[in-house]
Amino acid sequence: MKTKQYNFEELKKEFIRLGGRALIANIMLAEVNPACHPLEAENKIIFANGLFIGTPFPCPGRLSIGGKSPLTGGIKESNVGGLAATRMSQLGLRAIIIEDTPKEEEWYLLVISKSKVEFVKAAELKGKGNYETVAKLRDKWGPKIATLSIGPAGEQLLAAASVAASDLDGRPARHAGRGGLGTILGSKKVKALVLLRPTEPELEPLRDPEELKKVTRELNSILIPKKRGMTIYGTAGMVSVANEIGGLPTKNYRFGSFDQMEKISGEALYKIITSRKGKPTEACSPGCVIRCSNMYVDKNGEYLTSGFEYETIALNGSNLLIGDLDILAQIDRTCDDIGVDTIEMGNAIAVAMEAGLLKWGDGQAVVSLLREIGQGTLRGKLIASGATNVGKVLGVARVPAVRGQGLPAYDPRAFKAMGVTFATSPMGADHTSGPAIAGRTGWDPQKDYGAISESKGKIELARELQVMVSLCDAFGFCFFVGPDRWILEYVLKAINAKFDWNFTFNDLIAYGKNILRIENEFNKKAGVSEINRLPDFFYKETLPPHNNRWDISEEQLKDFQAFFST
Amino acid sequence: MKTKQYNFEELKKEFIRLGGRALIANIMLAEVNPACHPLEAENKIIFANGLFIGTPFPCPGRLSIGGKSPLTGGIKESNVGGLAATRMSQLGLRAIIIEDTPKEEEWYLLVISKSKVEFVKAAELKGKGNYETVAKLRDKWGPKIATLSIGPAGEQLLAAASVAASDLDGRPARHAGRGGLGTILGSKKVKALVLLRPTEPELEPLRDPEELKKVTRELNSILIPKKRGMTIYGTAGMVSVANEIGGLPTKNYRFGSFDQMEKISGEALYKIITSRKGKPTEACSPGCVIRCSNMYVDKNGEYLTSGFEYETIALNGSNLLIGDLDILAQIDRTCDDIGVDTIEMGNAIAVAMEAGLLKWGDGQAVVSLLREIGQGTLRGKLIASGATNVGKVLGVARVPAVRGQGLPAYDPRAFKAMGVTFATSPMGADHTSGPAIAGRTGWDPQKDYGAISESKGKIELARELQVMVSLCDAFGFCFFVGPDRWILEYVLKAINAKFDWNFTFNDLIAYGKNILRIENEFNKKAGVSEINRLPDFFYKETLPPHNNRWDISEEQLKDFQAFFST
Repeated sequence: MKTKQYNFEELKKEFIRLGGRALIANIMLAEVNPACHPLEAENKIIFANGLFIGTPFPCPGRLSIGGKSPLTGGIKESNVGGLAATRMSQLGLRAIIIEDTPKEEEWYLLVISKSKVEFVKAAELKGKGNYETVAKLRDKWGPKIATLSIGPAGEQLLAAASVAASDLDGRPARHAGRGGLGTILGSKKVKALVLLRPTEPELEPLRDPEELKKVTRELNSILIPKKRGMTIYGTAGMVSVANEIGGLPTKNYRFGSFDQMEKISGEALYKIITSRKGKPTEACSPGCVIRCSNMYVDKNGEYLTSGFEYETIALNGSNLLIGDLDILAQIDRTCDDIGVDTIEMGNAIAVAMEAGLLKWGDGQAVVSLLREIGQGTLRGKLIASGATNVGKVLGVARVPAVRGQGLPAYDPRAFKAMGVTFATSPMGADHTSGPAIAGRTGWDPQKDYGAISESKGKIELARELQVMVSLCDAFGFCFFVGPDRWILEYVLKAINAKFDWNFTFNDLIAYGKNILRIENEFNKKAGVSEINRLPDFFYKETLPPHNNRWDISEEQLKDFQAFFST
Repeated sequence: MKTKQYNFEELKKEFIRLGGRALIANIMLAEVNPACHPLEAENKIIFANGLFIGTPFPCPGRLSIGGKSPLTGGIKESNVGGLAATRMSQLGLRAIIIEDTPKEEEWYLLVISKSKVEFVKAAELKGKGNYETVAKLRDKWGPKIATLSIGPAGEQLLAAASVAASDLDGRPARHAGRGGLGTILGSKKVKALVLLRPTEPELEPLRDPEELKKVTRELNSILIPKKRGMTIYGTAGMVSVANEIGGLPTKNYRFGSFDQMEKISGEALYKIITSRKGKPTEACSPGCVIRCSNMYVDKNGEYLTSGFEYETIALNGSNLLIGDLDILAQIDRTCDDIGVDTIEMGNAIAVAMEAGLLKWGDGQAVVSLLREIGQGTLRGKLIASGATNVGKVLGVARVPAVRGQGLPAYDPRAFKAMGVTFATSPMGADHTSGPAIAGRTGWDPQKDYGAISESKGKIELARELQVMVSLCDAFGFCFFVGPDRWILEYVLKAINAKFDWNFTFNDLIAYGKNILRIENEFNKKAGVSEINRLPDFFYKETLPPHNNRWDISEEQLKDFQAFFST
């Protein structure tokens, strides 16, 4: 971005087997000084698609985005649906790396086609929300583009800024939310990447296309019926489940269930959407067979938001004592437009409510405050800098964050293996890096991983899930397909149908472990510790209504890491 | 503070030889969970006087204050002059430890006499500045009290809050500024400690009073003439020296010299003070023979501030491009009154100036902004939360801070051993923990420690100074007496005259090393790394006018720590 030069480069030989998160980890460690300031020229932002893109494998269209996080200070990968991974594959690109920062105060678009990258000045888009930005880009470059853009939060370099990916209808409603990756894109002065659809799309080579189709067919025949609940209710189906388990964050993690739960449940959401003729079910990216996304319309049937998910609903709903899906949909829409992570915002606003900056349950005040981010007020900047900074500036100790990043909507006292992942993942507190919801098990069919809120088996479960998810993130398929043993068997078959690697199950595990090892190596050099204590109050307070305790010791957490040195 | 109980306890046997910073380090490691949140009940604030208090040794009246820092997340000791250490000694107290937090929203005074501690409600002092607070306390408890108090910044739990100690004239102008210790006191809901003067003061036992007098007489006969420059100009004499060396922080560390330097030098300060009939020279605590403090009056001869020092002048003067001592004295007075660290404020405001929140050189805007802290505005809260948070909230990468704490007024590219200390001290970026000004050497008369801006010898110099300063801080004498080899010889004689320890020079070094070792152990358990990289721009930019570079490698810094494991 300093020189406005670009190169199309062949993937280095040692990176040839790496996709998505694995490629990002390796490039970051090889090319970026881990000690650099996340907003400085030395940091890079990397967009990498997974190894299953362009195959029939289910849900292969996740795009990994990564860099050194302004929130955690460590490496961060966040992956997102939408159309970008597919377009990149059609353009013949495994990854896009943006380096350095311009000296001038000018915003740019990167318009990427098969043969060139144009650096287009974008002064007219400065300060615009993602919705207006993407609409203008589609006006200019047509409806077939895929976009990756930032809103005013990223422009202002606020640490919770997200990268918006356009979905199948061209709406910037899919977000790589966690870790502040939009902030890095903002520091490079890139308002958006525009990926053109080539007239002759590249095709990904497949070793045995017939075998791959067969494997996929078999997998889908089991997967699709299994995921029926998610297809109908989306991730919001988790609201009532988490409430039942007693781990639904409520009033800044004071309670594990919410007395207005029924107003914000997946069932309530489904009812509203269907009665108003929205779409209860939508695919976020090409090839998705689970279709957990949705389109939410207002009382007049006008589009309000899409990709309206559990995390957003829980952290801005029960956690702020807001029991109103219309308000929550506005919060989601506003966050998507401004370009901030809904998880970080729910936590940051809870902390601001602790300090009395706004009132518990006051949804309109939340929407106004989020809009202030776009206006660049100090209140807005503070909120968009994340929960930890809000706590520091407002003098609040009750901050539900680990290593500078707000917690996702699983109280670790009830979702115990999630808690282990929050404390140990190189990504910091990130549910997607070890999604231990109820019923999840590791890869060993003989092992007893214990009940959801028991400490028993949770070190093993968390590390096995982290390894399995890192595989999902490298091969680029949605982890909703499953970080599960039986899925991995299909992944293995698919790998051996796509490549001539002759992979074994052990090779697969080693591949996943290695991703985590490299990420931890980066973090170590960045001065970020491998084990992070959860906030004090999780140790001190039991969680009503089931009175769950956080009872994983420091020794157990150390034991977690030991596994990766073998 | 939860139960409003107090105990007078005998010092534990294993702590009997520990004073000041050494006692704090040991108590913190033994009693406080290093992973606790600094604002939570588990953290403690400890006031400990040094082992030379009550002896004739020069400048023995420094009071160490410590706890887990809200700024650095590690252990912090900050020591301060004033009357408190003396009163504590007269009350027979080596240390005061405040534990836990009250549940109720009520402010307290702790009124401490020989036989009891009164918990006095202090609703009427809420929101008051230190000056008004201490005046009211003196009205009520008489002019002989010593006070330790916080201003509105500490009450609001803002991370850069200081603890004010009343000086010999009863002014709250001496501050334990660094690390946010006032924030901890605020979290305990203690507005002030009031130390009454006992009618029958305790005397510290001395093994050989005559020998101690003799040692002191001899030391003073060399020390007082040697420190004449400091007696006349105070620490402000450093302005012209740092400017000459090219390490005077100017415009947020862009330059090492300031074109308006002559308006803010020690010479200029002396001239203004003497012409207006202020006091160019004052002792900050009983027994001080260097008398580097001062009293600054306005054009009408009215008291404005005292203890007006180099760090305040440089970081709020040259560093903000303000060349006006009257404005700087107002800044100092305002910081003292609000109860915030002048070093952290100079850095935080520089970062805010980078973001355009106020204009470079606009002194009146700085004073107004500091006053906003007292008013509790969001701008005020942001600034008082320190430079690192300002950078995060305003999206500024050029933040002159290490591990969350702003740098003191020595550019590490010019003052190279200072830089090593900023990167390695358990206290974080703190000049007093390794004050490597020009001409300073370590304890080995054979060793060549190199010129001030050379990298040669700086690892050795920094670690030897850190060890020697930790001794000053444990024995409670001002480090202006000197972390020097020849001073240590007198310290050794004084120790052996006061105690029956039969200490050798090696015992002394081992004592100092051990303090740092224990502090590092606490930090390790708190998840704070031992080696901290300086901010990026010190690596990338050379420093005009002498074009000094930061050229100490990570390997050299690792070598620094190796010393402490032997």
